[in-house]
Amino acid sequence: MSKTRLEAFSDGVIAIIITIMVLELKVPEGDDLAALGHVLPVFLTYVLSFVLVGIYWTNHHHLLHATDEISGGVLWANLHLLFWLSLVPFVTGWLGENQSASVPTAIYGAVLLMAAVAYTMLQSVIVSYHDRNPRLRAAIGHDRKGKLSLAMYAAAIPLAFVNQWISDALFVSVALIWLIPDRRIESIVKQHV
Amino acid sequence: MSKTRLEAFSDGVIAIIITIMVLELKVPEGDDLAALGHVLPVFLTYVLSFVLVGIYWTNHHHLLHATDEISGGVLWANLHLLFWLSLVPFVTGWLGENQSASVPTAIYGAVLLMAAVAYTMLQSVIVSYHDRNPRLRAAIGHDRKGKLSLAMYAAAIPLAFVNQWISDALFVSVALIWLIPDRRIESIVKQHV
Amino acid sequence: MSKTRLEAFSDGVIAIIITIMVLELKVPEGDDLAALGHVLPVFLTYVLSFVLVGIYWTNHHHLLHATDEISGGVLWANLHLLFWLSLVPFVTGWLGENQSASVPTAIYGAVLLMAAVAYTMLQSVIVSYHDRNPRLRAAIGHDRKGKLSLAMYAAAIPLAFVNQWISDALFVSVALIWLIPDRRIESIVKQHV
Amino acid sequence: MSKTRLEAFSDGVIAIIITIMVLELKVPEGDDLAALGHVLPVFLTYVLSFVLVGIYWTNHHHLLHATDEISGGVLWANLHLLFWLSLVPFVTGWLGENQSASVPTAIYGAVLLMAAVAYTMLQSVIVSYHDRNPRLRAAIGHDRKGKLSLAMYAAAIPLAFVNQWISDALFVSVALIWLIPDRRIESIVKQHV
Repeated sequence: MSKTRLEAFSDGVIAIIITIMVLELKVPEGDDLAALGHVLPVFLTYVLSFVLVGIYWTNHHHLLHATDEISGGVLWANLHLLFWLSLVPFVTGWLGENQSASVPTAIYGAVLLMAAVAYTMLQSVIVSYHDRNPRLRAAIGHDRKGKLSLAMYAAAIPLAFVNQWISDALFVSVALIWLIPDRRIESIVKQHV
Repeated sequence: MSKTRLEAFSDGVIAIIITIMVLELKVPEGDDLAALGHVLPVFLTYVLSFVLVGIYWTNHHHLLHATDEISGGVLWANLHLLFWLSLVPFVTGWLGENQSASVPTAIYGAVLLMAAVAYTMLQSVIVSYHDRNPRLRAAIGHDRKGKLSLAMYAAAIPLAFVNQWISDALFVSVALIWLIPDRRIESIVKQHV
Repeated sequence: MSKTRLEAFSDGVIAIIITIMVLELKVPEGDDLAALGHVLPVFLTYVLSFVLVGIYWTNHHHLLHATDEISGGVLWANLHLLFWLSLVPFVTGWLGENQSASVPTAIYGAVLLMAAVAYTMLQSVIVSYHDRNPRLRAAIGHDRKGKLSLAMYAAAIPLAFVNQWISDALFVSVALIWLIPDRRIESIVKQHV
Repeated sequence: MSKTRLEAFSDGVIAIIITIMVLELKVPEGDDLAALGHVLPVFLTYVLSFVLVGIYWTNHHHLLHATDEISGGVLWANLHLLFWLSLVPFVTGWLGENQSASVPTAIYGAVLLMAAVAYTMLQSVIVSYHDRNPRLRAAIGHDRKGKLSLAMYAAAIPLAFVNQWISDALFVSVALIWLIPDRRIESIVKQHV
């Protein structure tokens, strides 16, 4: 089965997710800097979510690029990932309007944790389908960044009830860890092609 | 005529449908779990619609994948399917805000029934255009899952006026039946390619 | 210059236009058929616009399919068409909420007229760029349906101030004329390929 | 690494940006020309933004077309550009509702300036990655239009506090400068292919 449509559909959904988040930035009532200042918390949350969803897109790009063909299971593992990503605009809007509140921070972390879990599952399904592609398996095998992200998201959920700034710092840290694209797979691909 | 653009356009429309449904999840007013609880019914309806539209995407993917080329009639049969799917966000939002009401449940079922009818029509148009492809015709020929889904959606509409939970159970059952991708076409494709 | 991205971008824009129109169908306040009845005028206008935009997509599909390569002028003629199509959701929403009013009906016709003019211009740019492709030029040359649509849209604008139902009848008639895909180009393509 | 998905994803995001801007055109309350007149300022701002984003799409199209393959750095330089473009609907809506105000005009200019900076950065990353493609480097090397646009956007920001019409004139001038597609790269591509 061809992977072209899976990539096209995922691109479509992620492009829409990343773009409709900006609809949470409501046009301010006034026409001065004070009016703009009111949307600053939502804007900062938007920047964070844009980067985190952008990371999923680049990693998804690298992962699928290293893949030859896909199974029906991959289709559903992929839809599962897109489902959790589709909730990012909702939790971004809620966190943006309640940045100092614990529950929206914890829910933001929970949705990101579930997206990370879904990405790990997608990776596993693809690797198991390509078990004759030992380099892909070996390359992703350790996946230290992925495991670290899972741990940081999981930690951010209870810590939001201690101090939500700790959780925010964890979200930003995950973004910084991943901003460097996954050169491991990239290097494998280069050798492979 | 090439099928690439038909797939790309369908991917685009389905990606937008599946993603704008999340806009029905309005950012809650408060910042606690009680506020989040108010969006729970809409969220559950969103999950159901996401899965049902996801099923259409995977089946559409399989069906077109088994197809070589398309006619003008296929373009319109496909647009007809996309029309009914485009109403899913509307009925999802209405059902989500009125889960215990009969009419929104029946209308939700009616839109899903019409989408299923449109999919069956699309399948027929494609099969009749590929009458020299006996394997595709034979593979889809029985289409037990498709017929069962049609019957369950049709039954869900009047049953919504008896007890809307019966209809909800039918919608969930259709989702469960289809969550396994259509291996019949998939197997044909593998032999074919 | 390749036409793939032009098609992909146009597909994306048209897919979004056709799908965000459904956002004008606001979730009704009540939970009974009376509540649903209030959105019926918007729904009917949505059906009409869906069909008219769908016609543009299928014709665009046929036109580009008969094209080998594109120039910078085609890019802008195409963006010009997409601009007028992008106003369709706006005029659909306005007409849907004011079906018995003259001005929204006339403006709906004006946007459709401009889209038809833009399509004619795009067709001309493509034909003049392919002047060594006499069959494409000959096939589109007469373009009776296109000229008839232009005349009907132009007539619908002043007639909206006489009786808006005449204009509505003209819009529906244009849709019916075009529902049969443009077999002229299709037949040329078949010979060409 | 293939550029297909980068193009597809960028097309998706730009298509959505250019289309959701029309959502800022709220359906008017009344049904006469006076009601339509109230959305005229938003409409004019929409036209300007549509053209400016359309220019980014055509230039992006030309730039990527001249490119053979892409690096991880290009992915992020591209996401950076898409981030600033994603803010265009927000500043379009704000400027549209406050056309005679200095701050929205200056912020509109600032977002366009940042998008132009991001485009310049993307161009540099691509050129440095293709240092063995001297024609691409030579062709973009001068980039007079790009530098002029940067200067005009930078000037429009402080001038918005003198008289916002000067800034508006600068935005329109940038659009006019670029409406002619970048024939330099186009000519290189023709020689190259």
